[in-house]
Amino acid sequence: MQSRYFTLTDYPNGLPERELFSLETQELPELNQGEVRIRNRWLSVDPYMRGRMSGQHTYVAPFRLGQPMEGGAIGEVIASNDERLKEGDIVSHMGGWRDIAQISAEGVYPLPSADVPEQAYLGVLGMPGMTAWTGLNLIAECRPGDNVLVSAASGAVGSLVVQLAKAKGCHVVGIAGAAHKLAWLESMGVEPVTYKDRGAHELSDAIRLASPEGIDVYYENVGGICLEAALSQLNEGARIAVCGMIDTYNAEKPAPGPSNMSQMVVRKARMQGFIVADHWEHYPEFLKEVTPQVAAGDIDYKETVKEGLESTPDAFLELFEGGNTGKMLVKLTD
Amino acid sequence: MQSRYFTLTDYPNGLPERELFSLETQELPELNQGEVRIRNRWLSVDPYMRGRMSGQHTYVAPFRLGQPMEGGAIGEVIASNDERLKEGDIVSHMGGWRDIAQISAEGVYPLPSADVPEQAYLGVLGMPGMTAWTGLNLIAECRPGDNVLVSAASGAVGSLVVQLAKAKGCHVVGIAGAAHKLAWLESMGVEPVTYKDRGAHELSDAIRLASPEGIDVYYENVGGICLEAALSQLNEGARIAVCGMIDTYNAEKPAPGPSNMSQMVVRKARMQGFIVADHWEHYPEFLKEVTPQVAAGDIDYKETVKEGLESTPDAFLELFEGGNTGKMLVKLTD
Repeated sequence: MQSRYFTLTDYPNGLPERELFSLETQELPELNQGEVRIRNRWLSVDPYMRGRMSGQHTYVAPFRLGQPMEGGAIGEVIASNDERLKEGDIVSHMGGWRDIAQISAEGVYPLPSADVPEQAYLGVLGMPGMTAWTGLNLIAECRPGDNVLVSAASGAVGSLVVQLAKAKGCHVVGIAGAAHKLAWLESMGVEPVTYKDRGAHELSDAIRLASPEGIDVYYENVGGICLEAALSQLNEGARIAVCGMIDTYNAEKPAPGPSNMSQMVVRKARMQGFIVADHWEHYPEFLKEVTPQVAAGDIDYKETVKEGLESTPDAFLELFEGGNTGKMLVKLTD
Repeated sequence: MQSRYFTLTDYPNGLPERELFSLETQELPELNQGEVRIRNRWLSVDPYMRGRMSGQHTYVAPFRLGQPMEGGAIGEVIASNDERLKEGDIVSHMGGWRDIAQISAEGVYPLPSADVPEQAYLGVLGMPGMTAWTGLNLIAECRPGDNVLVSAASGAVGSLVVQLAKAKGCHVVGIAGAAHKLAWLESMGVEPVTYKDRGAHELSDAIRLASPEGIDVYYENVGGICLEAALSQLNEGARIAVCGMIDTYNAEKPAPGPSNMSQMVVRKARMQGFIVADHWEHYPEFLKEVTPQVAAGDIDYKETVKEGLESTPDAFLELFEGGNTGKMLVKLTD
């Protein structure tokens, strides 16, 4: 049986060229003891993967050139040499960027039984959802009634943050660009603020208008002018959960940072970077809280779906062009 | 009886002009019930006072134009209309920037009896010492063996941070400018690093040489290139206590901030701004721990002493020109 998979041919500087992703084919060997073979049905592409393309060890190991790339995926077990898993199991695992994954069963988990679509475990009930929940609750210690600001508020993570915060009884402001994203935020009861054609100062003014009582919690996905604008609107004791700074991921050279870092002192603010993997012991708690909301249709989670393995690099690159609303997924069909 | 005091005639933009400080004389009224009259012997000038000259409410109320300025002071009670205090008491209080203070007894505290010079309660055993101890222990949660970086490391606060960190068994790197400051750091067993003629990149390289195991705790007094350089050397889980950002206090327009804020995520770092006043309930604990070290001569606390009330504005302005080693004080004599 053959597996088709993407490799990286070189480490990019700036936004990766499409040509750096190469689709390869491999004849799969016999299954070793403890391995499973999975026919993938859904692949995840996520901004954090850009960090694995740097050739440097950041918080995850870099992709190795010429080797199958990795990422979250949902698929069906088609052969198993591990007693925990059997043919027909629908599983989540990290053997993405390929159609057939043959990997150690160790990192392969059968999906819980719940009345939700299977690809939800790559998004609202997977890493992005867990990231939203962790940053808001564990890192920023968001409390009912807080004034919450979210950047990239219609993205895979941000769109869940705003809804979890609303469900907690918070006043929520979301920063986004495109008109349909702002409209979606508004439909969720979130105060929409655009960053388009604005500098940090104008953005800050717009945030103040949207949240006259200041900001208690800032959920940071972007960096750049969003961070600078947010710093100027913090209340005393504000908490900033830094989930990511997508603004800088493809920067070819360093861009200046916020000129008002001293607001950290003036507002006695706390800024905390975090990686969701460090908090995975809370995943059952997260599932227990959020799965019923998803099953009941209380959470409006968006998906942008590309079809076919070949579209995976484009799906990934569109993350940096604002091409997605909510979770970007690749759907594989036979 | 007359009191001579400084007022601010206007709110400065940038480094205050000497002419903005006006020395006034006032005939003191009779003592009200609950008031005391104090002959000041030592006045404190501190960088945070610049924040009170902005005309805007930051974390302390601004100085009111034409009114006596305020600041830490040590003096002798010469008249009391409050039962807690009596003539001859040596007290610490906030009625500085003047020779004779007539104020409510509420914020006036007799000095503890310990074998230390009285002006120590404006420095090593006062607000700067408490600030050093609070930032290091309560905010940055410094642990024995941590690699600690301190900016403005020979200043009133920094010079105590480095010694408290050394006493905890930490590896300590101190950033300073002038050669005699670097020499003092070295004499304390601190790795000295100069920021002079360096950009953030060179400073970062120098920090790595001085602390090849990275930085676990960064005690931030400066901002600017110091913060940018430090961010690049953080270890996973690093804690940054932001005590101040003196680099920006006199900036006439915003200067760009660090271009590498995304290190906060990569290193899962925490940055926490703090104001020592919020932690004053720990002052007795601080005194209990640090007073014996001061009395035993185990802490080398530096003072730069100016003579005479008239020198107070110059003493204050020199804080921003690197004019002081350790605590800047004004000594008053009859």
